[in-house]
Amino acid sequence: MLYLVGLGLSDETDITIKGLEVVRKASRVYLEAYTSILLVDKAVLESYYGREIVVADREMVESNSDEILRDAQNEDIAFCVVGDPFGATTHTDLVLRARELEIPVRTVPNASIMSGIGATGLQLYNFGQTVSMVFFTESWKPASFYDRIKENRDIGLHTLVLLDIKVKEQSLEDMARGRRVYQPPRYMTVGQCAAQMLEIEENKKEGVYTADSLAIGAARVGGKTEKFVAGTLKELCDTDEILGGPLHSMVLLGRRAHELERDYIREFAVNKDTFDKSWNAEYGKQ
Amino acid sequence: MLYLVGLGLSDETDITIKGLEVVRKASRVYLEAYTSILLVDKAVLESYYGREIVVADREMVESNSDEILRDAQNEDIAFCVVGDPFGATTHTDLVLRARELEIPVRTVPNASIMSGIGATGLQLYNFGQTVSMVFFTESWKPASFYDRIKENRDIGLHTLVLLDIKVKEQSLEDMARGRRVYQPPRYMTVGQCAAQMLEIEENKKEGVYTADSLAIGAARVGGKTEKFVAGTLKELCDTDEILGGPLHSMVLLGRRAHELERDYIREFAVNKDTFDKSWNAEYGKQ
Repeated sequence: MLYLVGLGLSDETDITIKGLEVVRKASRVYLEAYTSILLVDKAVLESYYGREIVVADREMVESNSDEILRDAQNEDIAFCVVGDPFGATTHTDLVLRARELEIPVRTVPNASIMSGIGATGLQLYNFGQTVSMVFFTESWKPASFYDRIKENRDIGLHTLVLLDIKVKEQSLEDMARGRRVYQPPRYMTVGQCAAQMLEIEENKKEGVYTADSLAIGAARVGGKTEKFVAGTLKELCDTDEILGGPLHSMVLLGRRAHELERDYIREFAVNKDTFDKSWNAEYGKQ
Repeated sequence: MLYLVGLGLSDETDITIKGLEVVRKASRVYLEAYTSILLVDKAVLESYYGREIVVADREMVESNSDEILRDAQNEDIAFCVVGDPFGATTHTDLVLRARELEIPVRTVPNASIMSGIGATGLQLYNFGQTVSMVFFTESWKPASFYDRIKENRDIGLHTLVLLDIKVKEQSLEDMARGRRVYQPPRYMTVGQCAAQMLEIEENKKEGVYTADSLAIGAARVGGKTEKFVAGTLKELCDTDEILGGPLHSMVLLGRRAHELERDYIREFAVNKDTFDKSWNAEYGKQ
């Protein structure tokens, strides 16, 4: 049996009882560690779970999945995923391959940022499609998120923006020279995301949002040091210190935002005056 | 401290380690039991958690929240919610009241149907806003879901449809006579939902979807007996026996559905011929 086990969002105690039982009994335990991370090290997980864990990087999952699935017809394999196994990242490729090999698959769900973001106080019913924001480079500034946000904003819905993480990335030079040397991990901040969003709006000028549009920055959702900051996009460019370390996410508000949502998130406003001003100009409209 | 503890989707072992620690240490433990249910009885939870649980019905949470929050300035109170505390149902009222009383609040996230539905193999990125479907009566057939689905379908996105549950409901007669007698619980099935959707389409005739549009019925997501059925809306009117007992949910597919999603869900098709026919007519278009 292949078990896809969600680990939740924050630390070693976010696994479910069901998930922990699977991990403790499995023949082999893998940890998918390239689309999200927990806030604790692998060693903490290994000690808490009482199991050795093999870190599965993108290359292993995408090109060497048969090693992960080896003997899973007869043994139990635990493939652990931060968040929910089918949350922000889906592992449909792996499951489709397991089906081909006639390996039964079971999922142990857990919290995902896609529902955990409800802790902002925003109603999940009011969210449109989720978008991803990648690190821009000088020459590569993919803006497909802008059109998706436009679709959400046209209907008045919130948009959850998931922020890029770079783990085990090679520099272009090292890649060209075939050197297996990796850059230190990078996690996009709410400030970087807000700045990139404003840069694209400035280029495209379709008025999908403005520097005064309201958004919420979220850090370490579900963890003990969880932190939310509400403000205009311009304000959120400068709140990384308040938010603290990774992982960050962001929500851009839609105009259908309800007064109950306002009452809840106003508590997180960096500046209640500018918050109220932006709210009154753009939100609470059905 | 007020702890909002997510219990996950299925049984007593879906609580997280962190959540179980909170429940075991809290002065009082409440279970919100009117917006969703686990597949096990309260007695099973009490025995497994080793704690007495007070069932909090809608009246208690909405009108008597100060009893739930009593002494929470000095004691730890666990308010347990099926799924994620801020998932399909938000308890923002309770948190806002806690804030007024200067009671600190912490959330223990867990799986929600809003991310757990990813186990269908559909990408959560491709979902628009979630809608709710209530039991129609002869005289009351609220159709606001139709306009929301239209918004999602216009952009090509999937729609998660959450199905009504009725627990501790009074009949109109008993209510009129002030009798505290309650009806047996009712859980909407995928078949009932599909039939109601087609009824509204027949009335409105805006072509938001047709009897041939594809949808997925989901039962007991995250549980050992989890079951998915894919088919046209017409077909799904008659698949309740295949799906089995509650809880059910449904996803109406959007035309942006990707071929990888098709490969995954085709496995669940009640009839692969009609599935392929509908797919080729309407889906896989960007």
